[in-house]
Amino acid sequence: MKFQLTILGSSSATPVRNRFPSSQLLNINEKLFLIDCGEATQIQLLRYGLKASRIDHIFISHMHGDHYFGLPGLLSTLHLNGRVKPLYLYGPPELMEIISLTLTHSQTRLRYPLEFYPVDPSEPGQIFENAEITVETIIMNHRIPCTGFLFREKARLPNIAREKIQEYEIPTQAIADIKQGADFTLPNGILIPNRELTIPPRPSRAFAYCADTLVKPDIVSQIKTVDLLYHEATFMNEMLDRANETFHSTAAQAAAIALEAKVKKLVIGHFSARYRELSPLLTEARAVFPATELAKEGTVFQVGEPASS
Amino acid sequence: MKFQLTILGSSSATPVRNRFPSSQLLNINEKLFLIDCGEATQIQLLRYGLKASRIDHIFISHMHGDHYFGLPGLLSTLHLNGRVKPLYLYGPPELMEIISLTLTHSQTRLRYPLEFYPVDPSEPGQIFENAEITVETIIMNHRIPCTGFLFREKARLPNIAREKIQEYEIPTQAIADIKQGADFTLPNGILIPNRELTIPPRPSRAFAYCADTLVKPDIVSQIKTVDLLYHEATFMNEMLDRANETFHSTAAQAAAIALEAKVKKLVIGHFSARYRELSPLLTEARAVFPATELAKEGTVFQVGEPASS
Repeated sequence: MKFQLTILGSSSATPVRNRFPSSQLLNINEKLFLIDCGEATQIQLLRYGLKASRIDHIFISHMHGDHYFGLPGLLSTLHLNGRVKPLYLYGPPELMEIISLTLTHSQTRLRYPLEFYPVDPSEPGQIFENAEITVETIIMNHRIPCTGFLFREKARLPNIAREKIQEYEIPTQAIADIKQGADFTLPNGILIPNRELTIPPRPSRAFAYCADTLVKPDIVSQIKTVDLLYHEATFMNEMLDRANETFHSTAAQAAAIALEAKVKKLVIGHFSARYRELSPLLTEARAVFPATELAKEGTVFQVGEPASS
Repeated sequence: MKFQLTILGSSSATPVRNRFPSSQLLNINEKLFLIDCGEATQIQLLRYGLKASRIDHIFISHMHGDHYFGLPGLLSTLHLNGRVKPLYLYGPPELMEIISLTLTHSQTRLRYPLEFYPVDPSEPGQIFENAEITVETIIMNHRIPCTGFLFREKARLPNIAREKIQEYEIPTQAIADIKQGADFTLPNGILIPNRELTIPPRPSRAFAYCADTLVKPDIVSQIKTVDLLYHEATFMNEMLDRANETFHSTAAQAAAIALEAKVKKLVIGHFSARYRELSPLLTEARAVFPATELAKEGTVFQVGEPASS
């Protein structure tokens, strides 16, 4: 099952040349989930040949414009391109107020249902579930209410060892129960315990998106051992005071969270416009957590595969 | 005096690869005027090395998102980059409602004064004046209230013929009056009429921006003989029904307006995403009005110089 992340925007509040405001696209088993939607997100989707029409779920972390100013345009484009299937939007309650006003003043009535689910920024909770994944909020600590999002594959069923099927002549109709944990009883009454028949499933994969936040160690338990952690790193440690003032994190702080949470890979982003070159941020983070990569526009990260670094 | 137009976005409602929503930047004597501000306008300004901080006046034609969805982001960037000088914004009354709401929900208090002047879309009027130019609205006919903008140099004073200064020994202190139209009386009492002393000034230049509109022949008298006319041309004539339905113009219609108004040069833009190639629109317009050019991102047009075609 595909589980991959494409970076659409890596910039913090003000864009710089070739760095766009925050947006990321998750492809989970060919279903597309958009996370934040900074200005020009729809233009970035075009650039990378990613079809906006395939996005069914959009998650917005908070009401700073660099995380949602691309949303009204994207919603309008989907409408104009004839979308009829529902779009599910998750974000701060205030978001819908702005979307509604842009629609009212352009005298637009969307052709597709836009289903809005306001997100509670006060405590973590599951906000989405389908057959394959769940999405939980991660509570951030920013100047205004802000949530991250944890995308986790559901626990997979164990596989049955092929040779055991032959050895014990297990009939097809018994397999579903065994996958669910049942033992198997032979015709002679001998019971074969489930653990002897099954192979543990590949561990469920998870991606955590930690949006704008003052470094927040209490998220560690929630994001423990995720395969891929995106954590904002607006500044370097030399700007720690500024990071604290503006409720942002430094590259070293993001890496310390990754280390403590024992994640497999860290991606840092939301870089301040002051940094023309990003390699110093990478160096700072890798000194703490070597399996770190930079969010760069167009980069694709596999969730749950070995780090390429 | 510089008077030039840079195209930042040429696309209609939905962007396509390399075509951005509507925005144009006028440089009049090193003062920058932004006309419409579609999504990613600030990113286009970065791309072309145009300093957003130098813009003091922004004109928004109407409340369709492809003409203003870049404005909240631009205003925010100016704030974050430390602007303190006032910014003057002209547009539909509803515009300020949306800007205010984005500021409220991001808990942002702009560091600079944002002075908003609501534009009356019902009849043409002068909405701006400085020492060099005036700006008038042009009333468009679109699905929602919409205005274009006419930028016109003020009438220039005549020049005094250098050889006449010598011939009549005109003292310096008399020159200002002569420029204003006074005659000159020689010491012997003979009066030299003003017309013999002066050279008519270069004609005042003008640029008309005709935003989204069903073709509207009654604007011709207002835009008569302007040096540069931008007129939307969303469709080709083969899509005339669609143009009428959506209150847009075709390339041939835009050209017919240019021809009737005897403008010096026409730029067409706001192209529908259905056109991958724009040359057919240019061909259609040039068949009616040869001095036509395409609005293309990054193209600079001089207002008042001979057409380059």
